[in-house]
Amino acid sequence: MRIIRPTLLLDERRCLENIDRIVAKAVRSNVNLRPHFKTHQSHEIGRWFRSRGVTSCTVSSLSMASYFVEDNWSDITVAFPINIHEFETINRLAGKIKLNLLVSSTDVLSLLKPRISEKVNIYIDIDTGYNRTGFKPNDLQSIDIVLRQMTECTFFRFAGFLSHAGHSYKCRTYQEIKNIHEREIEFMDDLSRKYKLEFPDLKISVGDTPSCSVVENFEGVDEIRPGNSVFYDLTQAMIGSCALENIAVAMACPVVATYPKRNEIIIYGGGVHFSKDSLIDEQGIQLFGRVVLLKNNGWELPPTSMYLKSLSQEHGIIAAEEGEAADVKVGDILGILPVHSCLMANAMDSYQKLDGVVIDKMSSL
Amino acid sequence: MRIIRPTLLLDERRCLENIDRIVAKAVRSNVNLRPHFKTHQSHEIGRWFRSRGVTSCTVSSLSMASYFVEDNWSDITVAFPINIHEFETINRLAGKIKLNLLVSSTDVLSLLKPRISEKVNIYIDIDTGYNRTGFKPNDLQSIDIVLRQMTECTFFRFAGFLSHAGHSYKCRTYQEIKNIHEREIEFMDDLSRKYKLEFPDLKISVGDTPSCSVVENFEGVDEIRPGNSVFYDLTQAMIGSCALENIAVAMACPVVATYPKRNEIIIYGGGVHFSKDSLIDEQGIQLFGRVVLLKNNGWELPPTSMYLKSLSQEHGIIAAEEGEAADVKVGDILGILPVHSCLMANAMDSYQKLDGVVIDKMSSL
Repeated sequence: MRIIRPTLLLDERRCLENIDRIVAKAVRSNVNLRPHFKTHQSHEIGRWFRSRGVTSCTVSSLSMASYFVEDNWSDITVAFPINIHEFETINRLAGKIKLNLLVSSTDVLSLLKPRISEKVNIYIDIDTGYNRTGFKPNDLQSIDIVLRQMTECTFFRFAGFLSHAGHSYKCRTYQEIKNIHEREIEFMDDLSRKYKLEFPDLKISVGDTPSCSVVENFEGVDEIRPGNSVFYDLTQAMIGSCALENIAVAMACPVVATYPKRNEIIIYGGGVHFSKDSLIDEQGIQLFGRVVLLKNNGWELPPTSMYLKSLSQEHGIIAAEEGEAADVKVGDILGILPVHSCLMANAMDSYQKLDGVVIDKMSSL
Repeated sequence: MRIIRPTLLLDERRCLENIDRIVAKAVRSNVNLRPHFKTHQSHEIGRWFRSRGVTSCTVSSLSMASYFVEDNWSDITVAFPINIHEFETINRLAGKIKLNLLVSSTDVLSLLKPRISEKVNIYIDIDTGYNRTGFKPNDLQSIDIVLRQMTECTFFRFAGFLSHAGHSYKCRTYQEIKNIHEREIEFMDDLSRKYKLEFPDLKISVGDTPSCSVVENFEGVDEIRPGNSVFYDLTQAMIGSCALENIAVAMACPVVATYPKRNEIIIYGGGVHFSKDSLIDEQGIQLFGRVVLLKNNGWELPPTSMYLKSLSQEHGIIAAEEGEAADVKVGDILGILPVHSCLMANAMDSYQKLDGVVIDKMSSL
């Protein structure tokens, strides 16, 4: 495989194993798997899920919904607060597929109502502790307002309660993740019990990647929506959601300069390729990726002790241990395991499988 | 102007004023202006420079060089260490235009030599304190190695010394920037004096945006290469390179949820639009952008006290002062002044001028 510029490598075997693992867990737990496709943004990888029986997906924008409708996905949840300016897209998609939207504050449905002309399913966004979007679980007053708004328009159908426990990303142990998940389920159970009589079909949809990766018991849950679990990354490995062996993507980057005296190497690979997410490792070091050595059929594990210490627009600076940089030469291709695979994949236009085959994805915006 | 999704607004008047200011300074200082086009990545904005007499430009990748060659730029410096894997592109471009490349370590020219078939100009990269790429100014041994390599191949022509004093981005006062610039010039002067006899045509090329913005005396410099000065941003304003009134770009973002009780607002606009660069302001607050109110012909200054406090993939969370969030409604469009205009522009596919006209740019990779 010839690498010329920064190239997003995809280990298909690992990716399929990740898919198989979550599919099996969903079957075992008797929950619907509605994977979040914002991580891969690719028709081809979507098909890998479909070939394993997955028929519904989650996206983070209506543009992404449109992209997956093109590939015949017909049951899509946009897990992002309704943007009323996109009502034309909402109507267009809702006329074709089962479109599930998210209401995250009390003012949106009254604004959408005069503009909607197709049936949409509405989830109510519940904030179970992440403090990003949604209603507090005890804010029944607001939830009742939204439910009343739904009865006032025949195009709105209440589908259930949805939460994203994104605060699980701060966890570092199984027990911490489990606690967040259990608290989330308590909140959702309470809501379910309160409203089930009136809405017997309401669904409970949860599913951050850490919880979906480590929790086995999904009682009380109808649906899970993990995204990152298709690729995983260094952040998920640090959280404990996965092993380094499960990470299915790495950026292949040409070495363009070496500075053995200062134990640093410069790669072609910067903020425009990786995004600028970083993590603080166990030693308190901020890093933007870890270096793996590439081989014919993938990359070697464990990673080397080299890591991406900073990023400019196109440059990456790799820090090496004493003497380690001397083995690396200009023109070598190094692999970088990502801190955040979603944003890295988002920045790139395609994947390259280890056999050299290129997989297209949605362009970045 | 109808805004539907996150839209990168460009204030053409401010941008042209920024261009005129730097063009005038270059003329006044008798230096060649070779603006870095990685900031805007747009044929149209490149033409604005050309209409003011600019005939040379800088880019950060060979892909970007190819893009600007398409629009008839014929003298381009790739201010990034030579990536030997792209020798085919190098030969293709060097056969058409005056292509200036950068050597940042001693091993690259010997690798390029057997692959090069067209004349290229070579700058030697000098590290004047940023510690990213290049030779230390006193590392004459390495510089001599590179100069010798150039004599061994008729396709290589030594063009001069180039530096990027990126450490000026840590400055917060005029005097700090001036000190960095003066130290850089001392280093470059020394080199110039040492090698001018042997290479009377060698050029000295410098030009980070902070220095180019505040320094008036460019004695000893042949060429400046500012990039960010075409748009500026909050970081440059904090450094003191510009006033907030000079910032020529802002992202227009729809409000999708409001949480007046917690003084927060959610916009459609996340890491995929802004990138994840942040700054720490005078009060020690980390922020990803500042909110400006949009009006028909642009945005109001000064910014509001609202700021972008965190970013997910597509969500932005805006923090407001007590009571301030209550005035903002779902569906409102807020403007966000960027922390780093280069990475924000890189993430987007086009600009929208305040008259609604869309300006294309290079796609993100």
